[in-house]
Amino acid sequence: MKFKWLFVLASALALPASGAWANDELMKMEKNANEWVMPTGDYSNHRYSTLKQINKDNVKNLHPVWTFSTGVLRGHEGAPLVIGNMMYFSTPFPNIVYALDLNKNGQIVWKYEPKQDPTVIPVMCCDTVNRGVAYGDGKIILDQADATVVALDAKTGQEVWKVKNGDPKKGETMTSAPMVVKDKVIVGISGGEFGVQGRVTAYNLKDGSMAWKASSVGPDNEILFDPEKTMSMGKPVGKDSSLKTWEGDQWKIGGGATWGWYSYDPKLNLIYYGSGNPSTWNPVQRPGDNKWSMTIFARNPDTGVAKWVYQMTPHDEWDYDGINEMILADIPVKGKETKALVHFDRNGFGYTLNRETGELLVAEKYDPKVNWATHVDMATGRPEVVKQYSTQAGGEDHNSKGICPAALGSKDQQPAAYSPTTKLFYVPTNHVCMDYEPFKVSYTAGQPYVGATLSMFPPAGDNHLGNFIAWDAGTGKIVWSDPEPFSVWSGALATAGDLVFYGTLEGYLKAVDMKTGKELYKFKTPSGIIGNVMTYEHAGKQYVAVLSGVGGWAGIGMAAGLTKDTEGLGAVGAYKALANYTQLGGVLTVFGLPE
Amino acid sequence: MKFKWLFVLASALALPASGAWANDELMKMEKNANEWVMPTGDYSNHRYSTLKQINKDNVKNLHPVWTFSTGVLRGHEGAPLVIGNMMYFSTPFPNIVYALDLNKNGQIVWKYEPKQDPTVIPVMCCDTVNRGVAYGDGKIILDQADATVVALDAKTGQEVWKVKNGDPKKGETMTSAPMVVKDKVIVGISGGEFGVQGRVTAYNLKDGSMAWKASSVGPDNEILFDPEKTMSMGKPVGKDSSLKTWEGDQWKIGGGATWGWYSYDPKLNLIYYGSGNPSTWNPVQRPGDNKWSMTIFARNPDTGVAKWVYQMTPHDEWDYDGINEMILADIPVKGKETKALVHFDRNGFGYTLNRETGELLVAEKYDPKVNWATHVDMATGRPEVVKQYSTQAGGEDHNSKGICPAALGSKDQQPAAYSPTTKLFYVPTNHVCMDYEPFKVSYTAGQPYVGATLSMFPPAGDNHLGNFIAWDAGTGKIVWSDPEPFSVWSGALATAGDLVFYGTLEGYLKAVDMKTGKELYKFKTPSGIIGNVMTYEHAGKQYVAVLSGVGGWAGIGMAAGLTKDTEGLGAVGAYKALANYTQLGGVLTVFGLPE
Repeated sequence: MKFKWLFVLASALALPASGAWANDELMKMEKNANEWVMPTGDYSNHRYSTLKQINKDNVKNLHPVWTFSTGVLRGHEGAPLVIGNMMYFSTPFPNIVYALDLNKNGQIVWKYEPKQDPTVIPVMCCDTVNRGVAYGDGKIILDQADATVVALDAKTGQEVWKVKNGDPKKGETMTSAPMVVKDKVIVGISGGEFGVQGRVTAYNLKDGSMAWKASSVGPDNEILFDPEKTMSMGKPVGKDSSLKTWEGDQWKIGGGATWGWYSYDPKLNLIYYGSGNPSTWNPVQRPGDNKWSMTIFARNPDTGVAKWVYQMTPHDEWDYDGINEMILADIPVKGKETKALVHFDRNGFGYTLNRETGELLVAEKYDPKVNWATHVDMATGRPEVVKQYSTQAGGEDHNSKGICPAALGSKDQQPAAYSPTTKLFYVPTNHVCMDYEPFKVSYTAGQPYVGATLSMFPPAGDNHLGNFIAWDAGTGKIVWSDPEPFSVWSGALATAGDLVFYGTLEGYLKAVDMKTGKELYKFKTPSGIIGNVMTYEHAGKQYVAVLSGVGGWAGIGMAAGLTKDTEGLGAVGAYKALANYTQLGGVLTVFGLPE
Repeated sequence: MKFKWLFVLASALALPASGAWANDELMKMEKNANEWVMPTGDYSNHRYSTLKQINKDNVKNLHPVWTFSTGVLRGHEGAPLVIGNMMYFSTPFPNIVYALDLNKNGQIVWKYEPKQDPTVIPVMCCDTVNRGVAYGDGKIILDQADATVVALDAKTGQEVWKVKNGDPKKGETMTSAPMVVKDKVIVGISGGEFGVQGRVTAYNLKDGSMAWKASSVGPDNEILFDPEKTMSMGKPVGKDSSLKTWEGDQWKIGGGATWGWYSYDPKLNLIYYGSGNPSTWNPVQRPGDNKWSMTIFARNPDTGVAKWVYQMTPHDEWDYDGINEMILADIPVKGKETKALVHFDRNGFGYTLNRETGELLVAEKYDPKVNWATHVDMATGRPEVVKQYSTQAGGEDHNSKGICPAALGSKDQQPAAYSPTTKLFYVPTNHVCMDYEPFKVSYTAGQPYVGATLSMFPPAGDNHLGNFIAWDAGTGKIVWSDPEPFSVWSGALATAGDLVFYGTLEGYLKAVDMKTGKELYKFKTPSGIIGNVMTYEHAGKQYVAVLSGVGGWAGIGMAAGLTKDTEGLGAVGAYKALANYTQLGGVLTVFGLPE
């Protein structure tokens, strides 16, 4: 009943599709290279800038020009926005939002600190991160840890509206960045480790009222599927496409969280995102494909209805969340110009799809050590699982050894960049394997619902935990690869200066030659970098900025103060040596060239 | 009895005075400008470096070359040491000590984190600061907040010895930097706001056994005075010089804490330091001169026995602690070459004494707005108090208005620098006044024993809270003065590059022309600077380094999260606007010139 009402409301709101939407402003602003108006840089998730004052010849002279401590420890993901003379960004819990004056070396114009119950902290699986704020129609939108969405007046920091998007007592929290699309704010939810039923929700930018809500798993009217029109692998999904792939009511605590990045194609009028792991991590407890966890969704932003879906990892046995960003690029794929969607999945495959139809075009390993599947069957879209690495086949209380990648994937949330000049993708990756032992777990609302212990380590024969790679998504091939001692947990930035920037967990901001991967510059920021590099121009000068502040899943040992290398504590052991390089602390560093 | 035994022990240890003491090594090392072997730069507290690669012509090109987050919020006073390829520094509570490798952009060689009961935090009056570690004989010495002194192996960070120097349950804590003199470690104690009986203690560097202990107040055998030989204003102090100036047993909770800086003249074989306020802050409760609170001490480092003393503020009525550093310089005083001791007291007078005899040579106001006394009588050494600003005269529960300086003084612990090239002193100052209302207070061990409420503000007619000045200590005159919006709570550094460096509470590292005070460079570090600027040379290149991390007394509102401008909360109100400029967070920033 509620759904129907919402559906009608959404349709009604969708009427003035050609009118003056908030995103008319944003679509202009995203083309202004001086600004950085959304966490992803633009709707296509390119993280590319046409600025080129800083280029491969002079980048060696780059140096910090001002810095700003956030006053918050733990992991700083996300990136600042730059709009006019102002910079905006959010911190990890307590999710302070700062508005800084670029004319005054980052003097504070306003600061907003939400009041949140700190009991939300232990409900956050993988550090208390926040991936940034969105801008639209004079408002700054924040997804709080406690699942509140708040809109602030961009000039004053005053609350304009506030809405509860979930209940931390049930394990529902928020870490992702919202995206403003047309007159709506699109938000996800975290909690795949707590049996949350994942969904995407659209709130009206004007007043925070809900426009629509689309779950990842469940009945058609909850997942907003049209059985006849929503397509998968070239066919309509049919009735109850999700329910049929679950045993009993397991779907109600079935995960498919939506804590990653969003992208938007205004011409196709589609938003794209991925869903996370099915709950629990113990595959034995949830027979079936567990649709639509681990799935790429293309939805109409006006109604929420799905146009197409593609499930990458049916019946996940490894926690290979599908939430990583979808990059929308028009590139040659196997010789043919294509409106592509490119996605580097946790499962280690780099996928290229036709973003209009959902047709699967390329699925290749972007880390050669990936071993859990031999390949993806291009006819069915399903991975061919290697039995040795099937934790379902091993069964409960069996420790499956040497699975690559580890649960945190060949890449996690750290976003890649795309350069329209090279038509290549620049991907921060993890080079990590794991032992995985599923066990039976009972569901209690608000309690961890994981059902597996794991240990992580570098692939056999290697002693590094990451690579920064250039990827040809048209052929599915690595073009160049720079090894890194630790996972590259920072988002990349590509620029018209023929440069790609990224940060390292030890704390280096690095600039490499876009064509060769050759390192041209590095600077040790105060703490490990898990933030996303961005660039802007102010008063005629180009700047590069990044948040440092080690943490995130890779840095959870440091962030949460887990000092013992306990077997089964996931990432803690593998990244233990990080503490020899860096310590906690959130700092924004802004770089420029000498005068 | 205990005292006698100690006295004998100290005398015995003093025998090999011409032998190979630890300070033979230190005295060589302090002359090596490449290193920075003690928090004060050298035994004379000059904070001057002969390095001049960075000079007034090229300082405009200075920029950060690497940075390091300490992982600790709250106020970062102190400065790193540089010894060989290693850098050592301590953080505020929990007093982590870091040993960083200068060959590897500050990679961590070892980290020491003492286990301390966090209940010590509320016993620390003015933020949980720590002013740095000392080096001697292959050991790094740390004064912990909980009044433990620990010696660490400089190579490994392993504990060599540990000794309890006080009891936090009685309000005894430690914030100051130890100083290694000969074969001893000289340490002070904090707790003037808790009725602690102040003292200086010397521990044997080798094993941490106590060599001697000298109280600031009390009987002659506790204050280590020789009634016949210990001099004051040219005369022997006589018997019971302290006891006679207190009513009853008040001296036992009489303060005179010793939490400031130490200096040492190896030729005269004397150490110098000052004692803090008499307890309580309510002067009505403690009639008399309250000797030897507020006093400069010259003591023999072998025995602890005082050679001379000079009390600057008899019967303090304003909390004008005398703990600020003693700078030892051979300068012309009124035309005559003099072995001088120069001291910028909280009470607003800049004192110049003959450091051999304690003779008072100059006492002039180094902030023209100082109003509590008209002048210092050079015959008696006593200030001429203005009745309007006497809180004793006003009496209990009377609010004395507009006293300058405020309790935190025209300068507090933030150390000045001295340049032998200009023979001038470069002084970070506070430009702050107060209203002061004493009230009756009872003593309970471990509870605040303050007995006054105060509010702070800039002097009438001014809207800035600080000045950075150059001072001629031979004539007692300001040579130049740079106004600053907030108190300059950072220590200064003078160099042979004709530069003086200091930090600001908003977070700027500044370099000014030593001769004119003209600002030549500034850089916004991540947080407000209350650390002390230092310099060193590594692999042929000069660097300047400073800890940022706002806090300290001036920043206590931010550090302790006191967000309301509560009347009577001392510094909180005056510095409230700081939160518009900077946030908490400890970061070391190392600066260099471009390659």
